[in-house]
Amino acid sequence: MNTASAVAPALNPPVRILMGPGPSDIHPRVLEALGKGTVGHLDPYYLEIMNDMQRMLQALLRTKNTMTLAISGTGSAGMEATVVNLIELGDSMVVCVNGVFGGRMLDVATRAGAKVTQVEKPWGQTFKPEDLQDALQKAKPKVVGIVMAETSTGAWQPIEEISKLVHDSGALLLVDAVTSLGGVNVDVDKWNIDAIYSGSQKCLSCPPGLSPVSFNQRAMDVILNRKTKVQSWYLDVTMLAKYWGSERVYHHTAPINMTYGLYEALRLVHEEGLESCFARHLLNHRALKAGLAALGISYTAEEGHQLPMLNAVRIPDSVDDATVRNGLLNRFGIEIGGGLGAFKGKVWRIGLMGYGARANNVFVLLSALEQLLAEQNHRFDHGASIAAATAVYSGK
Amino acid sequence: MNTASAVAPALNPPVRILMGPGPSDIHPRVLEALGKGTVGHLDPYYLEIMNDMQRMLQALLRTKNTMTLAISGTGSAGMEATVVNLIELGDSMVVCVNGVFGGRMLDVATRAGAKVTQVEKPWGQTFKPEDLQDALQKAKPKVVGIVMAETSTGAWQPIEEISKLVHDSGALLLVDAVTSLGGVNVDVDKWNIDAIYSGSQKCLSCPPGLSPVSFNQRAMDVILNRKTKVQSWYLDVTMLAKYWGSERVYHHTAPINMTYGLYEALRLVHEEGLESCFARHLLNHRALKAGLAALGISYTAEEGHQLPMLNAVRIPDSVDDATVRNGLLNRFGIEIGGGLGAFKGKVWRIGLMGYGARANNVFVLLSALEQLLAEQNHRFDHGASIAAATAVYSGK
Repeated sequence: MNTASAVAPALNPPVRILMGPGPSDIHPRVLEALGKGTVGHLDPYYLEIMNDMQRMLQALLRTKNTMTLAISGTGSAGMEATVVNLIELGDSMVVCVNGVFGGRMLDVATRAGAKVTQVEKPWGQTFKPEDLQDALQKAKPKVVGIVMAETSTGAWQPIEEISKLVHDSGALLLVDAVTSLGGVNVDVDKWNIDAIYSGSQKCLSCPPGLSPVSFNQRAMDVILNRKTKVQSWYLDVTMLAKYWGSERVYHHTAPINMTYGLYEALRLVHEEGLESCFARHLLNHRALKAGLAALGISYTAEEGHQLPMLNAVRIPDSVDDATVRNGLLNRFGIEIGGGLGAFKGKVWRIGLMGYGARANNVFVLLSALEQLLAEQNHRFDHGASIAAATAVYSGK
Repeated sequence: MNTASAVAPALNPPVRILMGPGPSDIHPRVLEALGKGTVGHLDPYYLEIMNDMQRMLQALLRTKNTMTLAISGTGSAGMEATVVNLIELGDSMVVCVNGVFGGRMLDVATRAGAKVTQVEKPWGQTFKPEDLQDALQKAKPKVVGIVMAETSTGAWQPIEEISKLVHDSGALLLVDAVTSLGGVNVDVDKWNIDAIYSGSQKCLSCPPGLSPVSFNQRAMDVILNRKTKVQSWYLDVTMLAKYWGSERVYHHTAPINMTYGLYEALRLVHEEGLESCFARHLLNHRALKAGLAALGISYTAEEGHQLPMLNAVRIPDSVDDATVRNGLLNRFGIEIGGGLGAFKGKVWRIGLMGYGARANNVFVLLSALEQLLAEQNHRFDHGASIAAATAVYSGK
């Protein structure tokens, strides 16, 4: 069979400025790393890369956890990996739900056989320790799951106080750091987080495809003392540990080139330094927020709990969601995210993640938005948004 | 915290000729594709890429199955995806085991809650329909799983006759095509395969990280009529179908750049044409086999059932496994694979996969092997291996 007719057009992706909820703008050095020559997954060089990547991930997560590695899948695979390793059929788990990703964790936990207790808060709000008190007493959970940066609402969940409460109740704390890692401080050891997962495609400026995870010794003890096998072979941490550890037992073929990408992304983060990196995310968020305010656009998350890297904002009443987002994409090459679930058509999600968190992106987005909003007869003080952003950058 | 001390060395992978069991040599166009600019997973351009990739996968698998897509994980994730979607707790499944990967499928199926019946054959042998007869009658399975190209032994399993028997018994046929796809004919519709999975890193000349899968309507009917949810959220085909289908419902963030790589890899396969591609794999296998014979090296799989792309051969008695493989890697930059499980230290696995299936690789490997074997005082007719390979290429 001649299959020449099946040949698709040459790959020719348009140039985009990625300011949605992820994937974010990829740093050019990461793109270059992806295309480096592939070596085998047991090549001595690749094992060095794994060791160095593990070390860089530990420094980023501020943990000494030996069991720190990248799962061969996206952030959702990391979520599933942490849940299915910790949970056995019938185990009690409390999941905090104030957006799409808490809801996803609840679904994953249910499929893993957990008896799940849901603690709910309205979208955009965060949890205080007292919100969990009842559920902890009644459900006596083995694991409590919570999302640190709810990508659907832009809400920034403090972890430290809740961690104390969760541990006082005897449970393990599982944290979703998909959107937070690399953009704000995530201090695994100080906050006593037992298991955590993230994704490569948010504040790490790397394409989607890998999920950093980490388990502390308490979590590993639970996993090593399971009565039943982990339901997922692919995500079984006890087997992954033998490949990532000194034994180097083959499990599955690691995604070599994606690992190159994440490796380079982690080098970039540490070259900049964590504190500088977090400060940069915060500064650009403040500039964007000031600019949006001048356009009459406000945030969905509570004041004081707004994520710097994920700016979820209300679409003004007079403005059409699709017209603006299509205009941004087709006329300016800018991607921002629409609302998910209850926020569909009502909310925009503007990412300032990793390499994307820079003044150039803030300026070009505000200018493009100003033009598109003016075309829809949305009323605002022209030029004020850039002036407001500039004032933030100037420290005024 | 200044984390500059955590910065790992610049990425600088050594140049390798990948002739192991995979990853295989990556085509330069695929490496280039990996580094192209990332777009969003709901970008109109990316949706086009997904459509075109689906069409190219269908042509490669020779199927009209709508449910043809790439799982966001390696081949083992594809194995798990096919098993956990088809199997519910307590379902009967027969798994054919004649090497490591049949054994892996058995483990995956057990974790998915299947009552598993194992049909065994010695490593290196293949299954005949009569080998399954008893198990089919006794276990009355819902699903029969079999590996088409057993990467641990190099055995090439015929599928068509077994498919007939499996369907006569009322079961679904699940085929592992990780190593076979792109190297030999895989005819999903003609052979009546209900579910199949593969990997990007074998005969498709793409790095590891994606797993093409396909389900026919019979399999999808079973999945859509499940009594319980699929145990894996990440691999739930009913949800993936809504993202890959016209609805485009967000599930997880697709691995954009890996998809670029697989897309380009599939273009290469179809530019060459399937029949030419399979003929090239076979020719290079014959040349390698002739050359190895001249070195006194024989195959582990039965004559007539030896895979062209995975040449599993016996290490001569007088020869040390590690010395030769280290010599190949360190002095010639060539990776070949060692034996797995029962074949450890006894077998080499030489890949001629995708872009790696070419005369240059055959010549350089035979020459390097000749030198290393001579250093170990293995006795053979010097120069005869290249002469034998050349004779095959010359059609003599």
